[in-house]
Amino acid sequence: MALRTVDLNADMGEGFGAYRIGDDAALLDIVTSANVACGFHGGDPEIMHETMRMAYTRKVTIGAHPGFPDLWGFGRRVIPFTCGEIERLVAYQIGAAQAIAAYAGCHVSYVKIHGALANLAEHDEGVASAIITATKAVDASLSVVAIAYSALERLAREQGLRVHTEIFADRAYAEDGHLLSRKEDGAVLHDPALIAERVVRMVEARAIETVKGNMLETQIDTICVHGDSAHALDIARTVRRSLEGAGIMLKSPHESTYYVV
Amino acid sequence: MALRTVDLNADMGEGFGAYRIGDDAALLDIVTSANVACGFHGGDPEIMHETMRMAYTRKVTIGAHPGFPDLWGFGRRVIPFTCGEIERLVAYQIGAAQAIAAYAGCHVSYVKIHGALANLAEHDEGVASAIITATKAVDASLSVVAIAYSALERLAREQGLRVHTEIFADRAYAEDGHLLSRKEDGAVLHDPALIAERVVRMVEARAIETVKGNMLETQIDTICVHGDSAHALDIARTVRRSLEGAGIMLKSPHESTYYVV
Amino acid sequence: MALRTVDLNADMGEGFGAYRIGDDAALLDIVTSANVACGFHGGDPEIMHETMRMAYTRKVTIGAHPGFPDLWGFGRRVIPFTCGEIERLVAYQIGAAQAIAAYAGCHVSYVKIHGALANLAEHDEGVASAIITATKAVDASLSVVAIAYSALERLAREQGLRVHTEIFADRAYAEDGHLLSRKEDGAVLHDPALIAERVVRMVEARAIETVKGNMLETQIDTICVHGDSAHALDIARTVRRSLEGAGIMLKSPHESTYYVV
Amino acid sequence: MALRTVDLNADMGEGFGAYRIGDDAALLDIVTSANVACGFHGGDPEIMHETMRMAYTRKVTIGAHPGFPDLWGFGRRVIPFTCGEIERLVAYQIGAAQAIAAYAGCHVSYVKIHGALANLAEHDEGVASAIITATKAVDASLSVVAIAYSALERLAREQGLRVHTEIFADRAYAEDGHLLSRKEDGAVLHDPALIAERVVRMVEARAIETVKGNMLETQIDTICVHGDSAHALDIARTVRRSLEGAGIMLKSPHESTYYVV
Repeated sequence: MALRTVDLNADMGEGFGAYRIGDDAALLDIVTSANVACGFHGGDPEIMHETMRMAYTRKVTIGAHPGFPDLWGFGRRVIPFTCGEIERLVAYQIGAAQAIAAYAGCHVSYVKIHGALANLAEHDEGVASAIITATKAVDASLSVVAIAYSALERLAREQGLRVHTEIFADRAYAEDGHLLSRKEDGAVLHDPALIAERVVRMVEARAIETVKGNMLETQIDTICVHGDSAHALDIARTVRRSLEGAGIMLKSPHESTYYVV
Repeated sequence: MALRTVDLNADMGEGFGAYRIGDDAALLDIVTSANVACGFHGGDPEIMHETMRMAYTRKVTIGAHPGFPDLWGFGRRVIPFTCGEIERLVAYQIGAAQAIAAYAGCHVSYVKIHGALANLAEHDEGVASAIITATKAVDASLSVVAIAYSALERLAREQGLRVHTEIFADRAYAEDGHLLSRKEDGAVLHDPALIAERVVRMVEARAIETVKGNMLETQIDTICVHGDSAHALDIARTVRRSLEGAGIMLKSPHESTYYVV
Repeated sequence: MALRTVDLNADMGEGFGAYRIGDDAALLDIVTSANVACGFHGGDPEIMHETMRMAYTRKVTIGAHPGFPDLWGFGRRVIPFTCGEIERLVAYQIGAAQAIAAYAGCHVSYVKIHGALANLAEHDEGVASAIITATKAVDASLSVVAIAYSALERLAREQGLRVHTEIFADRAYAEDGHLLSRKEDGAVLHDPALIAERVVRMVEARAIETVKGNMLETQIDTICVHGDSAHALDIARTVRRSLEGAGIMLKSPHESTYYVV
Repeated sequence: MALRTVDLNADMGEGFGAYRIGDDAALLDIVTSANVACGFHGGDPEIMHETMRMAYTRKVTIGAHPGFPDLWGFGRRVIPFTCGEIERLVAYQIGAAQAIAAYAGCHVSYVKIHGALANLAEHDEGVASAIITATKAVDASLSVVAIAYSALERLAREQGLRVHTEIFADRAYAEDGHLLSRKEDGAVLHDPALIAERVVRMVEARAIETVKGNMLETQIDTICVHGDSAHALDIARTVRRSLEGAGIMLKSPHESTYYVV
């Protein structure tokens, strides 16, 4: 019987200049994939390089993590851009990340979009297509991490990109498989044990567990965790330990190709 | 007998958002290589894309034009960075330019450094090496445009990069072959006819003409002209016409490889 | 009989670093009030200072022209901020402008909001109130330039600020007195003679002329013109000449208090 | 006999957007003066407002803390500006801080320059004069916090500004009264108890204690402490406790005027 594996991903390298957010070194001991900010919503060439080096030495797979050009808002606000402009924004950031990775002796394996832009791509086909177009134009061998049940997941698959479907460890799901809006009560889960148990249930069932307890079938390639507080790190560690305890192996989908080279 | 050819290059795409500097469209009808700003001292993904598209449709070769991250100072001020930091700054910008070029259906053929960073690389071996290291790490097939008699020219050649040696149409040269500092009288030439005649003499002699009239032997692959005013455009046009009149063909050193693909 | 007077205002100082937009020197020979950008959507301390000095020596009244912190988008995009955040953004910019004015030996007489933020304040009472709150907190003696028939005009008057009601020389008006959206055909007028004649009619009638030719009564204290192209300057000059030809005196409402000191 | 009093000041509000540096709330329970960043090297209107509100409710005096426009370098790098440009940079930031303070219901009592710009003003008379010119132009009633034995201290006094002379709790002093360069061994002190004892000795002796143990007479109005780490907070608390234990009262020089209003 094939061994069940899953990836753990987290955003990192989201500081700027003298600023830092989250404990990236600690997080890199937990996750198998690192979404590295590309200098627009956070990150700068120094931080990108440091983060990629740290990831590389820990054999953590590296992804580009583009966002809106909005340092002030940390990429969490919708900045009005046309889909064409989003294509250029995303392409630019992927290229910058690839170059820093090349300089650091490693490489970028995937693209995961950040914040408000990722939220748009969950429902807006135009934005999702823009991300796909940019990714394919820059490097069609990159895979895309896409939220389960999102427009981006569906369209990226249709348009021939390799897709890694993502669930969130600490976010509640509505009955349609979409993330419950953060404005709703209970949208964010806080208890490490409950979070970890739910993650294991979802990975084992290959399904999203909704707030009402329904299980919606989906591929699950990667689980998003956070590292921006001691509590977040605790959740991430508990999720990892529970998955391993259930016999599920933590492994990036890119791992084999990555380290053979 | 082999036909004498030379390249004309100019900085462009140096606006930002709603701002524009220079008449890039007019300039692209004169030059054979376009140094496209990469978003740090000027430029943004939209402008990079527009500029590259315009260059591509006119069969003008495209270079990345990285500078200090200093929009306020337009890259003309020395911002204190270590050589290591300069490596990452340059790598980031080359990668971003390559990605926008890929998205635009064309590609980056060379790197030419901007403003204060380029001036440093004329004399400072550490900075010159940083630029070389970054370029090689990102893409060792890129060539580097380097000022004649500069540290960058010498070291890039030693370290195996393809180098295109550059002279400036409108700048006076000291007796050691270096650019006369802008602070000195007569450092910048203004008369289109005199500028064009001097350029032709230098290209024909394969030598720099100093302020005292001495000719210092050098390779001359490319001539830098400007397009930031009507007068600058007039100079560029006169230089081009005079070179053609002297039987020197205007052609990018990258042209053949570029359009065969 | 009292002499009819009106003010001509224009945005200026909207460059950044090496960038410039419009011919401010030419514009300052036409207008009676200068809306000086404050460094967020455009402008920097150098440009603010130069622009204020030029205005001061020409006896042109100086206003602060705050906008969204969005250099890339030139303040023309709605950036998501709460009303409370808008209060702080506007207060900050007014204070900065006052300080540069004090340093330049002159002072700020009024506030006129820029771009997308001004458009919001035309209809959104929360945003209008935020602008009023900020202005009063920083300096209740400042007046506010507000678009005729806008939420800002009504609320600023109700809340005790001195208001100068503004019409646009080159914009068409809908039947409800609001600016016709730029997306609609005919929203922007281009013919200098027709524009100038319409302005004179409106000032003489103390009324807005709608696209259907209806006249909607309003106070008219100031007329907005532009200087970002040769054509715009031509319109501004024609408007000024026509007003003067009709015996209407061009004069800032702040002029007397300003130059007595 | 007059009670001996001294002020404790610390930099704060130096985050940006989602970024934070230091525990300002904890620091505000220790210090008597808060140097609030003005948005150029750190800080934004939201953070300025929050920080000033927190300071105000704790009866901590508020100062403007201008720096170079260099968020990336956190104001710690020398960015090439002329003295005239520094005047405008400083004026702009003071005005912005005054406006946010007015909006927050409090006011700015003094100016303390940040980072690399403050270091320049220690020795460079041109830069020191630029800071003085800017401060006087914006509000001549502001006092200036100046490093003991600095050009700024001497010139500000000569030019009629109220000056508060500052020593650093954790920095070693050379025999000429200047701060030992951070590049030298022992330039930064780390032991809270030793730091606090030295501070008490200096305040009691009204003298700087040099690395060789010499005491150089100086006025001491305020002591700079830090809050960017748990260790820094510990030092600040120990300094405060030791001063109080020695019968020295912690009090801002602006306190009386401040809260009478």
